[in-house]
Amino acid sequence: MPSFLHPDRFLGTDPALVAIARPLYESVARLPLVCPHGHVDPALLALDERFPEPTALMIAPDHYVLRMVYSLGVPFERLGVPRLDGTPSPADPRDVWRTLAAHWHAFAATPTRAWWEYQLHEVLEIPERLSPATADAIYDAIETRLAEPAFRPRALFERFGIEVLTTTDGASDSLEHHEKIRTSGWKGRVVPCFRPDAACKIASPGWWTEIERLSRVSGRAIDSYRAFLQVLAERRRRFRELGATSTDHGVESPFTHRLSAQAAANLFEKALSGTADAADQAAFEAHMLVEMARMSLEDGLVMQLHAGSLRNHNPWLAATYGPDRGADIPVAVDWTRGLRPLLSECGNDARFRLVLFTLDEATYSRELAPIAGHYPAVRLGPPWWFHDSIEGMLRYRSLVTETAGFWNTAGFNDDTRAFLSIPARHDLARRIDARYVASLVADRRIAEDEAPRIMEALAVGLARDTYRLG
Amino acid sequence: MPSFLHPDRFLGTDPALVAIARPLYESVARLPLVCPHGHVDPALLALDERFPEPTALMIAPDHYVLRMVYSLGVPFERLGVPRLDGTPSPADPRDVWRTLAAHWHAFAATPTRAWWEYQLHEVLEIPERLSPATADAIYDAIETRLAEPAFRPRALFERFGIEVLTTTDGASDSLEHHEKIRTSGWKGRVVPCFRPDAACKIASPGWWTEIERLSRVSGRAIDSYRAFLQVLAERRRRFRELGATSTDHGVESPFTHRLSAQAAANLFEKALSGTADAADQAAFEAHMLVEMARMSLEDGLVMQLHAGSLRNHNPWLAATYGPDRGADIPVAVDWTRGLRPLLSECGNDARFRLVLFTLDEATYSRELAPIAGHYPAVRLGPPWWFHDSIEGMLRYRSLVTETAGFWNTAGFNDDTRAFLSIPARHDLARRIDARYVASLVADRRIAEDEAPRIMEALAVGLARDTYRLG
Amino acid sequence: MPSFLHPDRFLGTDPALVAIARPLYESVARLPLVCPHGHVDPALLALDERFPEPTALMIAPDHYVLRMVYSLGVPFERLGVPRLDGTPSPADPRDVWRTLAAHWHAFAATPTRAWWEYQLHEVLEIPERLSPATADAIYDAIETRLAEPAFRPRALFERFGIEVLTTTDGASDSLEHHEKIRTSGWKGRVVPCFRPDAACKIASPGWWTEIERLSRVSGRAIDSYRAFLQVLAERRRRFRELGATSTDHGVESPFTHRLSAQAAANLFEKALSGTADAADQAAFEAHMLVEMARMSLEDGLVMQLHAGSLRNHNPWLAATYGPDRGADIPVAVDWTRGLRPLLSECGNDARFRLVLFTLDEATYSRELAPIAGHYPAVRLGPPWWFHDSIEGMLRYRSLVTETAGFWNTAGFNDDTRAFLSIPARHDLARRIDARYVASLVADRRIAEDEAPRIMEALAVGLARDTYRLG
Repeated sequence: MPSFLHPDRFLGTDPALVAIARPLYESVARLPLVCPHGHVDPALLALDERFPEPTALMIAPDHYVLRMVYSLGVPFERLGVPRLDGTPSPADPRDVWRTLAAHWHAFAATPTRAWWEYQLHEVLEIPERLSPATADAIYDAIETRLAEPAFRPRALFERFGIEVLTTTDGASDSLEHHEKIRTSGWKGRVVPCFRPDAACKIASPGWWTEIERLSRVSGRAIDSYRAFLQVLAERRRRFRELGATSTDHGVESPFTHRLSAQAAANLFEKALSGTADAADQAAFEAHMLVEMARMSLEDGLVMQLHAGSLRNHNPWLAATYGPDRGADIPVAVDWTRGLRPLLSECGNDARFRLVLFTLDEATYSRELAPIAGHYPAVRLGPPWWFHDSIEGMLRYRSLVTETAGFWNTAGFNDDTRAFLSIPARHDLARRIDARYVASLVADRRIAEDEAPRIMEALAVGLARDTYRLG
Repeated sequence: MPSFLHPDRFLGTDPALVAIARPLYESVARLPLVCPHGHVDPALLALDERFPEPTALMIAPDHYVLRMVYSLGVPFERLGVPRLDGTPSPADPRDVWRTLAAHWHAFAATPTRAWWEYQLHEVLEIPERLSPATADAIYDAIETRLAEPAFRPRALFERFGIEVLTTTDGASDSLEHHEKIRTSGWKGRVVPCFRPDAACKIASPGWWTEIERLSRVSGRAIDSYRAFLQVLAERRRRFRELGATSTDHGVESPFTHRLSAQAAANLFEKALSGTADAADQAAFEAHMLVEMARMSLEDGLVMQLHAGSLRNHNPWLAATYGPDRGADIPVAVDWTRGLRPLLSECGNDARFRLVLFTLDEATYSRELAPIAGHYPAVRLGPPWWFHDSIEGMLRYRSLVTETAGFWNTAGFNDDTRAFLSIPARHDLARRIDARYVASLVADRRIAEDEAPRIMEALAVGLARDTYRLG
Repeated sequence: MPSFLHPDRFLGTDPALVAIARPLYESVARLPLVCPHGHVDPALLALDERFPEPTALMIAPDHYVLRMVYSLGVPFERLGVPRLDGTPSPADPRDVWRTLAAHWHAFAATPTRAWWEYQLHEVLEIPERLSPATADAIYDAIETRLAEPAFRPRALFERFGIEVLTTTDGASDSLEHHEKIRTSGWKGRVVPCFRPDAACKIASPGWWTEIERLSRVSGRAIDSYRAFLQVLAERRRRFRELGATSTDHGVESPFTHRLSAQAAANLFEKALSGTADAADQAAFEAHMLVEMARMSLEDGLVMQLHAGSLRNHNPWLAATYGPDRGADIPVAVDWTRGLRPLLSECGNDARFRLVLFTLDEATYSRELAPIAGHYPAVRLGPPWWFHDSIEGMLRYRSLVTETAGFWNTAGFNDDTRAFLSIPARHDLARRIDARYVASLVADRRIAEDEAPRIMEALAVGLARDTYRLG
C-alpha cells in the first residue's frame, strides 16, 4: 500500500533543504530501533495477548491525548478514565473514541498528531484521516486489525525492528514479566531499568509500603541504613542479571549532597521511626543521588536523572483519578549548583555515566551543554516529554550542539507507555535529525561527507554507546 | 492609492513559504478587529473630538517610542514629556517630531517601526518614509489629515472595522465615558474591563485614596473586609452592566494563596489602621487573586493575569516624570508554584476562565503551555508588550503550540493606548499567524485544508470565545 | 591561493537569503578589526617572538578545544596540560596534536570548528582538512609557516588589519608590556583594560597578595578603605595614560548595592584584619560595582560587567590543573533586581557607559534588552563565550533587536586569548550579522538601502563608539 503520509513530512519548509534532508533521513529510516528508556509494561510482551479495542490501546495509555482533551473542557468521565475509588468511567470505548475525534482539530501542530497519524496510517494501515465523520469506520477498521496475529505485541515488536526495549521498574518490582520473557524462548530483547525513587522518599505516605515490598522481594529485613544500601545493591545486581544497563531517578529538583554515613544513617532511623519530615526527605534524596552515582561507578549501570517536574499539580485530580493524568507541571531548575556535589565526586571518572533530562529549556545552553561539554561522565539526554516534538527537538539541537557537540548527547529515547507509538516517535526523531544535519550541510558548517556518520550516531550509535547496550 | 508598504511584508523570507502565507493572510486581513484588552482612553470615543497635532497623537501616548529615544541619550525635556510637578516640556511638538525623525534609524527591526509605517502609510496615507529630511512635510501632512472628519475617533473606529474595543478601568472608575458612549446613540461597542489592583495594595501610599474613591463611587462605607468584598462585587456588577466581560490583574509575581476569611479580615483591619507592611500586602494580594477568581467563577467575568513586570525600575525617572515612562523591567516568574493554590480551587471548573500573560519567555514552554494544556479554565494570552513583535510572536507560537495547541490560546490583544496603532497591530499579528500556519502546511504538519479554520480562530474566533465577546 | 573555505559559508541555508547576505558580508569583510575586549597576552606583541610549535599556538591557549576533548574522556595528561604542582604533561606536542585530530569529528557544528578552519586554511594557508590521516602533515606545514617572518605576532597583527586590540589586565598589573609596545616605535594600537576583581574579593585567599601587589605597583600603603579607593583611582589613571578606555568586572551574580562610606570602610577594616567572610565579600563586591560605576562616570572609562559564571565548578580539576580549564559553568542571573541600585545612581547619566554580558540567554529578551532599551548608559555586549557561535549570535539578534534595536548594542568582541583566532571570530560574526540583516531585508522589515549603514555599525561603528575608541 502506498503510504498515506507525505514522504517529506517534517523534513523542513524549504525545498532546497528538504532535498538535502531526504537522503539523510532515508539512510537511517530502516535502522533498528534502540529504545533505552521508556514505560511500556513488560507484561505486554510477556503475555503477548491480542490488544483490546482501540481506545484501550491508543487513548488510555496516552496522557498526551488525555490532557489535551481534558484541557478543552471534557471531563475524564467522558474519556474512559476510571476513578481512583474504583468507579469505572460510564463512557463506552467507542464513545471515548468519538469524543477524541470531535476534538481532533485541537491537536493540529502537536507531536501527538504526528505520532497518531503514523500509528493510524503506517502501523494500522488506515487510509482515512481521523475526523468526526470517519471516527466509527476507523474504530471498526482498527478492531479488525487487532484480531490479526500480525498485530500482537511480539509480532509488532519484530515488525518495528526493535533491537532492545528498556522498561522502567521500581526497585521493589518482582521483575516476573522480565523473567518470563527471558524464559519464553522468544528472542526479543526486553530489559528492565532500576528506579528507586519510592524507596528514597522517606517522609511520603507510601514509603513504608515500598520498604516492605523491597524487604519481601529481597528476602532481607531493612532495619538499618546499612541494610537498606545492601538491599539496593542486591536489587541492582538482580536487575543486571535480567539485562538492565541503567537506573533512572526522577526528582523535582536536581539537588545533590553528600551526607556523612552517620548522618545518612540517622535520617534513615528517623524514617524508620516514622518521624522524618519533608526537609529530612529532601536531604536524604539529595544524598541518595550521590550514593546511587557511587554504586553506578562500581556496577556500571548508567544513571539517568529526570529533574524538574512538579508532580500532581492538581490535587483534586490526583485525589480523584490518581497520578500520571497529565497534571505534572515543570519548574525552573538549577543544575549547575545542584549537581556540583555529585559531579565533584564522580564526574571526572569515565567509568561513571550520567544522562541528564530537563523540562527547563533555558538550561540547555546555560547549564547542560556546558556541563556535558566538560565532564567526561555526563551526556545530555534527548528532549524530554513536552519537548519531544518537532520544534522542541530543533531547539534542543540549536541550543546544545554548538557547546556540547553531538558526541556528548545520548541519542534518542522514545520514553513512551504507548507501545504503538514507538516507531512513530523514532521516525519523527530521525526526520528532525536529518533536517537539522541538512541545515548544517546547507550552511557549509559540516561537509556533505560527514553527515552520514552523524546521522548513524543520532539514530542508533549514541543510544547504544551511552546506555552500554552495544 | 496603491499601498506604499510591500504587500508581502513580514510574511517570511522564503519565497516558497510566502506563497503559502499570502492567501492565508488575505483570508483574514479584512475580518473585523476584536480588541479584548487595551488601554485606549474611553474619553476619546465618548467625546469624539478631533485629534490634536501629530506628536500628541502618535508620540506622547506611545511609551515604546519614548523609551527608545530616551535610551539613545535624549532627555524627556526634548521629547515633550511634562514633569510630574507640572513643569511642561519646553520642546514644541514639531521639535519633538523632528527629534524622533533624527533617531528613526534606531527603530530598524523593531515592532514600533512596523506599527508606525502602517499608521503613517495605511491609516494616514502619507507616501514618504519618515526621515530627518521628510519630518516637517510629514508633520504638516498629518495635520491636514487630522482636520478631516474622516479622521475623528469614531470615524476611524468604524473604518478600522473594530467589532469591540475593551478599555482598562480602575475598580473605582466612574465609567462616565462608557456611559456616555452607551447613551450617545453611536453604535460602536466599547466596553470596560475591571482592574482592582490599586484597591489590593494595602501598604502602598495610594491605597487610602483608592478606598475612598471606591467608597464614593459605590456609595458605601468600606469599614471592613466584608464591606470591601461587597463593594468589589457591586463594582463588578456595574462593569458588567456596561458590557464588561473581563477583569485584569497586574502583579510583579503570580503568587496566589488562600487565606482564611478571618486572616484576610485581620489584614484588612491592619490596612485600615495604617499599619500594614509589604509582607501583609503580598499576602493580601495573593489572597485577593484567589478571591477574584472565585467571583469570576460566579459572575462569569474572564480573569486576566499579567505578571512579571517590576514597575518603576528607575526611581529618579518615576519621581520626576511619573509612571509608565518605559522604565518597567521584567523579572523571572514561577507560574507553576505561584498559581497552584488558585488553580487547585478553580482550575477544573469550566465556568471559570483565566488568561495568563508573561514577559518571561522561558515560561512559555516550561510552565504556561503545560498549564494551559491541562487545566480547562486556563488559556494563554498572546505575546505581551516587548514580545508583541515579529520574532516574539514566532517564538510564542513555536514554544506554545506543540504543547497547548491553538485552542488553548486566547487570540490576539492589541494592548495599546495609541488608538491609531490598533489596526497596525492586528495586521501585523495576522501576517505573523499566516506565516506560522504556512510553515505548518509547508512542513506537512497540517493539511492545507485545515489552515483556514486555524487562521479564522487566531484572527477573531479565539478572542471572541475566550473573552465571551461573541 | 583560492580559499579552501566556501565563500558563502554560514550565510544561511536558503539560496534566496544567501544572495542578499553575500554582498552585505562583502561590504564589511575587509574593514579593520576593532577589538575592544579580549585576553591576548600583551607580551606577545611586546616581544614579537616567533610562535612556538602548533600545539602551544593553537591548543594550549584554547580552552574551547581542551574542554571538548576532556569531555570525551581524554585526560589532561594527554593534552599537554601541566599540573598546578609543576608536573609537566608527559605528552609531546605532536602527540597532543594527533589526539585532537582523532577527536576532531566531535567538533562538528561547534564554533571552534569554524574558527579553526579559518585559522588553518585562511591564516596558515593549509589546504587539507584536519583528520587523523592529515594530522602530521598539517603539523609540519604549520611549523614551516611559523618560521617565516610574516607569521610573527606584529606582522600578523598588521595583516589581520587590527585597528585596536584591548587586553585584560589586573588592577595591580605593572603594564610593562604595554609600556614596551608604546616605546618600541611600532605603530600597532594595543591598550589595557582595568580589571579589579581580585582586589574586591576580600574574603578570598589571594586577596592579601593582590593588595600587596597593588600597594607595590602604586607605591602607596593600602591601610584604609580611603587609601584603597585612592589607589584604584590612581591605577585607573595609569591605565588611561596607556590608552585604556574601559574596565571589566566579572561576578557570579550581578548584585549591586550602595553601602554608606562608613559601612564600606568597616568591611575593609574587617578584611585587613583577616576576618571578612563570604557575606562580607558579597556585600563589598556589590558596593564596589557601584563605586566603580561612579569612578567611570568621572573618568570616562567604559564599564563592562560579565556576570553569571560559576568559576571552577570542578574542584578536583581546579586543584590539580588550576583555573580556566573549561570548568566554569553558567548559572541563572537576575539583572533586573541586581542592577537596580547601580542604575538608580548612574543609569540616567549619558557620561556613564555600562556594557552587559550574560551567559543566561533567558535574560536577553526578559531583562537585558528592556534595560538597554531604556537606560541611556547601558549597552548590550555581544553574545559571550558559549553563545559566541552561529546559532548563539542568531538567537541574540532575534531576542534583543526588536526591543533594544541595534544602536543599544555594543558591536562585536572577539574575547579570545588565542591570537590567531581573532580574524576568524570577526569574520564569523560579520557573516552572521550579514545573514541576520539579510533576513530583515527579505522580510521587508528594513529597506535594502538601510542595510549598509547597519552592517557598518555592527562590524566596526558600534564597537568604536561604545568603547570610546574612535
